[in-house]
Amino acid sequence: MRRILPASCLAVLIAASSFALAAGHEPPAPPETPAPPAPLRAAAAKIIGAARSGDHAWRTLARLCDEVGPRLSGTPAYPKAAEWAAARMRELGLADVRLEPVTSMRWIRGAESLSIVGPGPERRLAVVGLGRSVGTPAAGITAPALVVRDFEELERRKDEARGKIVVFNFAMKEQPEMFRSYGEAVSYRWTGSSRAAKAGAAAMIVRSVTTLRARAPHTGVMGYEDGVPKIPGAAASIEDVEGLQRLQDAGTPATLRLVLDDREGGPVAESNVVGEIKGTERPNEIVVIGAHLDSWDLACGAHDDGAGVAMALETVRVLKETGLAPKRTVRVVLFDGEEWGIVGGKAYFEAHRGELKAHHAALEADAGGFRPVGFSCAGAPERVERIESWLPLFQPLGSLWLRKGGGGPDIGPLAKEGVTSLGLTTDSRHYFDYHHSALDTADKVDPSELDDAAAAYALMTYLLANE
Amino acid sequence: MRRILPASCLAVLIAASSFALAAGHEPPAPPETPAPPAPLRAAAAKIIGAARSGDHAWRTLARLCDEVGPRLSGTPAYPKAAEWAAARMRELGLADVRLEPVTSMRWIRGAESLSIVGPGPERRLAVVGLGRSVGTPAAGITAPALVVRDFEELERRKDEARGKIVVFNFAMKEQPEMFRSYGEAVSYRWTGSSRAAKAGAAAMIVRSVTTLRARAPHTGVMGYEDGVPKIPGAAASIEDVEGLQRLQDAGTPATLRLVLDDREGGPVAESNVVGEIKGTERPNEIVVIGAHLDSWDLACGAHDDGAGVAMALETVRVLKETGLAPKRTVRVVLFDGEEWGIVGGKAYFEAHRGELKAHHAALEADAGGFRPVGFSCAGAPERVERIESWLPLFQPLGSLWLRKGGGGPDIGPLAKEGVTSLGLTTDSRHYFDYHHSALDTADKVDPSELDDAAAAYALMTYLLANE
Repeated sequence: MRRILPASCLAVLIAASSFALAAGHEPPAPPETPAPPAPLRAAAAKIIGAARSGDHAWRTLARLCDEVGPRLSGTPAYPKAAEWAAARMRELGLADVRLEPVTSMRWIRGAESLSIVGPGPERRLAVVGLGRSVGTPAAGITAPALVVRDFEELERRKDEARGKIVVFNFAMKEQPEMFRSYGEAVSYRWTGSSRAAKAGAAAMIVRSVTTLRARAPHTGVMGYEDGVPKIPGAAASIEDVEGLQRLQDAGTPATLRLVLDDREGGPVAESNVVGEIKGTERPNEIVVIGAHLDSWDLACGAHDDGAGVAMALETVRVLKETGLAPKRTVRVVLFDGEEWGIVGGKAYFEAHRGELKAHHAALEADAGGFRPVGFSCAGAPERVERIESWLPLFQPLGSLWLRKGGGGPDIGPLAKEGVTSLGLTTDSRHYFDYHHSALDTADKVDPSELDDAAAAYALMTYLLANE
Repeated sequence: MRRILPASCLAVLIAASSFALAAGHEPPAPPETPAPPAPLRAAAAKIIGAARSGDHAWRTLARLCDEVGPRLSGTPAYPKAAEWAAARMRELGLADVRLEPVTSMRWIRGAESLSIVGPGPERRLAVVGLGRSVGTPAAGITAPALVVRDFEELERRKDEARGKIVVFNFAMKEQPEMFRSYGEAVSYRWTGSSRAAKAGAAAMIVRSVTTLRARAPHTGVMGYEDGVPKIPGAAASIEDVEGLQRLQDAGTPATLRLVLDDREGGPVAESNVVGEIKGTERPNEIVVIGAHLDSWDLACGAHDDGAGVAMALETVRVLKETGLAPKRTVRVVLFDGEEWGIVGGKAYFEAHRGELKAHHAALEADAGGFRPVGFSCAGAPERVERIESWLPLFQPLGSLWLRKGGGGPDIGPLAKEGVTSLGLTTDSRHYFDYHHSALDTADKVDPSELDDAAAAYALMTYLLANE
């Protein structure tokens, strides 16, 4: 595993595993604290009421989906998304709206296909290349499939792998094991190509990291281990990988042809999109609220992470509409390149190293636009305890809980340096149905659930800015 | 509508509408009849027990899906499917296994794409060409979209349609209206291109005929009205059509580029696949049992109609295993070209015109591999009543009912000439989730539901052959 998982990937996996724990299993008991004071309760009620006043967040999300669509970092669509976001920020009256530089990377997806060429008639399967995969020759790679259930089976059968297309049929487990299982399943996507290449394979196919049977391949970023030949990596639908397994089990393994006209295209100058509500009393103290603006290219990234973008913009609208001015500066940051390994989060951190101490807190939403269930929170124990004491204010939205640790991928670098960091957790049991696939469209987000998530996000923003 | 719906299409629509009525709404009260005699009850129990003895039908279906896959009539895959089916019939010990000639038609699906070229970044939508559509020029057709909810709106706005890509956003209704709504939704797929062409449109996109939001376009056959320019027709996903509607409603209609490298390729010599169990007492009287072997090309047609093929083959296995020999000849017919308009059903009828009187009955399954709920039955009233009296024998499978009228698409020509015709009806509320799309794969068929459907089909076969 040495070097094959760069730090950014580990961050993703760590985020995923804390996300896992946050997904509803064994939440801590609610704290026993005195009821918050009446003015705070009144403010909370106003914020929740404003966020629930008519699909505002969903309409913002649908505009992002309809007017921009997919916005993979490094492609020509991303700068259009950044323009769109900056325009929305200006419309909302944010101050100092700006594009802060990020160096992203270009990866070009061309024509892609996977076919069984025999036995039987030639037939196409559902496939997508994995982000950062090298391409195949123009005529594709034609080779027998070797289907294995896991790394152990590949190890046992490595003598059979030479020249073949290794297919990892590792099944992400169903609920309630799904969130624990996600990290393990992703390790096949991340490291599968280099693992297969070490056994002499010509290409690698991974079973899509999902449990929904919608014949939809799910993409995601992959890594290459230093010193190991780079072979193409792609994700096929669950249905197709199971079919290949059955053919092999019947003693008639398929011969496949994989065509990926994919390639890296070098660094690209892009940006995070930033705007602020200046604090009325402590303008030099900053509460960062954010989400990532980039998405995968197969759909408009409605849950991942258009919903987070909509929550951040809705928070601004709600604070303006209710007249509840934040005492500290609320800085909205829409991050670039999360899907490539928190590129925008790292760029923000580097650019703002000099004002780290001014960061009072950071809040991110990157767990889908579902009903809010709680927050993860990394910070000093007394800060975390204080934040936990605010939970009764969220009661109209349900019995939200707070879990220690976590936050969000893009604010991870801030959290590491001690900035109090929170992540909004949602009822994300269907998150991986859509995640990184063509299914992640606006209609998959329920407007009233998104309203409630935005309400929780807005209220937490207000409490952090005014505590 | 004159000439735009050929007779074959009407047959499909009629089948669909009877299918609709058969789908669970207001079934007639069960008949009050004396219990069937003990030997018949014993035979029924044996048949049901054998069909339920271990996933045989599902494994047959999976073999068809895995070893052959999609098998659109007129493509090179269909003859492979026919070979496969004939081999299974021989393995099962059927007599006189043969390929009976059918003249099908070739239609070639090439590269297809639909993109929004503006406003905003260029982005791809999920699309498939409709069967029999003409292609676009190689560079595609680039034109503004005009989205209309129905034919009436097109009529009102026909002056706006010239040169545009007309998008029919007609939504098939959700349950319990789904089955009644199917025929209406299909009329957009069937007649939409000529309707749009009459208004001067350059191409036509139809909202997929489904209610499942899996970002999956659903194909199907379309027609061209004589004397009207032939413009390309394609189906886009629900999600994408709704997005185009929202863009238009916001005053910023999309400009689309549609590329369909599709074309007709002329007639093709193909075949129905036929085999028999000779009757022990009345070998010259024939009970036809069948399903259609062809499928659409986007998946292996597991529900439509691989499940029916599996039921027919499983019926043979069950009759052989139980030693329950049919007194009349059971003739298994796997039909070609149902999706192109009952091509194989008509060919069978023409070839066997001379022995129509020898046809004691015909049974078809083309409603998906779901739990059986009843039969539709067309025939003389006293025959229908007699068949209804057998229903208590099916009791282990549930309270099956019989509805007068209907049958199946491929045996429709026989029914029209007075042959008693039955269709197996299933709990098909999810049929249109998968139907004609990439989602129609083997895993969508539940093995135990398919076992029960095969049991009902086998038992009805036995009763028809031995009454």
